[in-house]
Amino acid sequence: MNDEPRSAYAEAGVNIDAQEQGLAGIKRLARSTYTPNVLSDIGSFGGLFRLDVKSGDQPVLVASADGVGTKLVVAKMAGDYSTVGRDLVNHCVNDILVQGATPLFFLDYVGAGVLEPEQMVALVRGVADGCRENGCALLGGETAEMPGFYKPGDYELVGFIVGSVDRPRLLNGSRVREKDVLVGLPSAGLHTNGYSLARTILFDRLRLGLGDRLPGAESKRSVQEHLLAPHLSYLAPLRPLLEHPGLHAMAHITGGGLTDNVPRVLPAGTHASIRVGSWDVPELFRILQDGGGVSDEEMLRVFNLGIGMVLFVDPGALREILACLRDAGQKSWVIGTVQPGGQGVVYDLGALPTAEELEPR
Amino acid sequence: MNDEPRSAYAEAGVNIDAQEQGLAGIKRLARSTYTPNVLSDIGSFGGLFRLDVKSGDQPVLVASADGVGTKLVVAKMAGDYSTVGRDLVNHCVNDILVQGATPLFFLDYVGAGVLEPEQMVALVRGVADGCRENGCALLGGETAEMPGFYKPGDYELVGFIVGSVDRPRLLNGSRVREKDVLVGLPSAGLHTNGYSLARTILFDRLRLGLGDRLPGAESKRSVQEHLLAPHLSYLAPLRPLLEHPGLHAMAHITGGGLTDNVPRVLPAGTHASIRVGSWDVPELFRILQDGGGVSDEEMLRVFNLGIGMVLFVDPGALREILACLRDAGQKSWVIGTVQPGGQGVVYDLGALPTAEELEPR
Repeated sequence: MNDEPRSAYAEAGVNIDAQEQGLAGIKRLARSTYTPNVLSDIGSFGGLFRLDVKSGDQPVLVASADGVGTKLVVAKMAGDYSTVGRDLVNHCVNDILVQGATPLFFLDYVGAGVLEPEQMVALVRGVADGCRENGCALLGGETAEMPGFYKPGDYELVGFIVGSVDRPRLLNGSRVREKDVLVGLPSAGLHTNGYSLARTILFDRLRLGLGDRLPGAESKRSVQEHLLAPHLSYLAPLRPLLEHPGLHAMAHITGGGLTDNVPRVLPAGTHASIRVGSWDVPELFRILQDGGGVSDEEMLRVFNLGIGMVLFVDPGALREILACLRDAGQKSWVIGTVQPGGQGVVYDLGALPTAEELEPR
Repeated sequence: MNDEPRSAYAEAGVNIDAQEQGLAGIKRLARSTYTPNVLSDIGSFGGLFRLDVKSGDQPVLVASADGVGTKLVVAKMAGDYSTVGRDLVNHCVNDILVQGATPLFFLDYVGAGVLEPEQMVALVRGVADGCRENGCALLGGETAEMPGFYKPGDYELVGFIVGSVDRPRLLNGSRVREKDVLVGLPSAGLHTNGYSLARTILFDRLRLGLGDRLPGAESKRSVQEHLLAPHLSYLAPLRPLLEHPGLHAMAHITGGGLTDNVPRVLPAGTHASIRVGSWDVPELFRILQDGGGVSDEEMLRVFNLGIGMVLFVDPGALREILACLRDAGQKSWVIGTVQPGGQGVVYDLGALPTAEELEPR
């Protein structure tokens, strides 16, 4: 198709022209996410974002970096690179949301041995979709072709987000008190954590294929549908609560599960008492546990077990906040409380108090 | 050494405890970079940075994401992960510097098949050193263990920087005029670009080892010393010039060389006339060109050829700006001018006007 002599760089495995073809697509996708604060087009050296600062504001920038882990391996197996970009954005949005921040802009990094324009564009399209859904500008990014570094078809996808919060509205655990109520919001499945273990169990131990149904499952969803279900963003349902004084803190349940993430906002000298059984654990997790012979303890540290976000709520505001979530169409469960003494999470099999009992008279 | 039963997650290749051992080291390193604006310790979900906004300021955030490409392969070959972190930071610092911005904070991402604490800490130590040298807080980051995704010993390292500039001081090419003078600042070698081609030439064609000297070279530096020489940051010498009205724009010479990077700030209907021969091309590049039989054109598009940064200077301010650079201990060369008509870069073998001739009477 191409009679021109290949350049020395192309012979070394780097195809600048194919990259540029993909980059043109990426440029259009990025532009579709621009908010009025974006000052630059891509192609400048850095992306430019005008920060709106009202008089009296004390802007705090909140930033986070993340990848989507070996969920990428599943995307490669399925030949479907369209979903992991949204995973990445939603994960990052939640990571700054728990500090009270709303997103300003996002940057992505795509690395591969050979950047195939179609796959590169599919990946970035997912990122752009996620950005648009969260009102976040895709301000820039980097694509790197690294021959010999990645296996053919392997893509690395890394995201960086910057959001802002006015300092008095910052959430960081300092408002959490004994008796605060833990409200869990459902995840959509694994989100982006525990994929190395899940793949081992599903593909190696249970010898399932991507098109198979989970053994003994009620759901007709295939393994692929389960594994590529996108990480949810909780920005839309939680945005109306960000200025509510009864919302004391939030924890995004990612790697480390409830066990490691809930304590990140617990004050010293308190522990979280969480009742397993107070929410619906999706059957995927039960099948993973049975298939892998995984202990309860490890399940709770590796997977989110169906809880993607935990709110720490003042008992006096519980009824109002639950109503607010319901109004936003957001399902939720009361899953535990903050208790004096100890540390970390204590899982409890006893009955949880009802919402009415938790509220002060 | 460890008699405890391995967890299912560890059997799947992910070692959370080893990660945490490394993370403790990373936490200390990050803390060593904190500026007074950092509000969070690592371990929060997102890093927190208080933005100082003076009355009347119009803050523009400038952000950039980058990797160090297959310079990482050389780091792995040499078993020396201490230098690439500084490369990454300096690259990112330069990318926002060319828009007039100074760095606020940085986030990194380290991915590997198996995260070995020592190598992880060496990588992040380089990042932290680079951050400290540039007065930039290492606000957070992510380490991801992805078994089966990376080859043993392979590390991916991605960085993300945010800086700020007051809007009237923003540099983006809009001030560049015909007759502006191009001033080049020396690079320290390849910086972080062209490694795939350089490795092919040095290791495959010339069959050199890391400890070898370059064939026919005057310098006694080894191949390893050449290839791992860190990317320079130009922040220190250029910071005093950022408010100088005679500095019209800058171009960071990265992938794409002078050929692709200089035009990023050229106004439509102008071209840059650059005289090859007006600066000292380090012998590494001549040896790469001869060893690989690479055309002049491709050399100028793949490598920086010894120029790491180009300033676009008002001819009336040239003498003062050159003196300023000299005072900062920064070597520089007049390498070309902006000319009417055409586009891109035209390489010129004729004599360049002297600095005196370029200045208006």
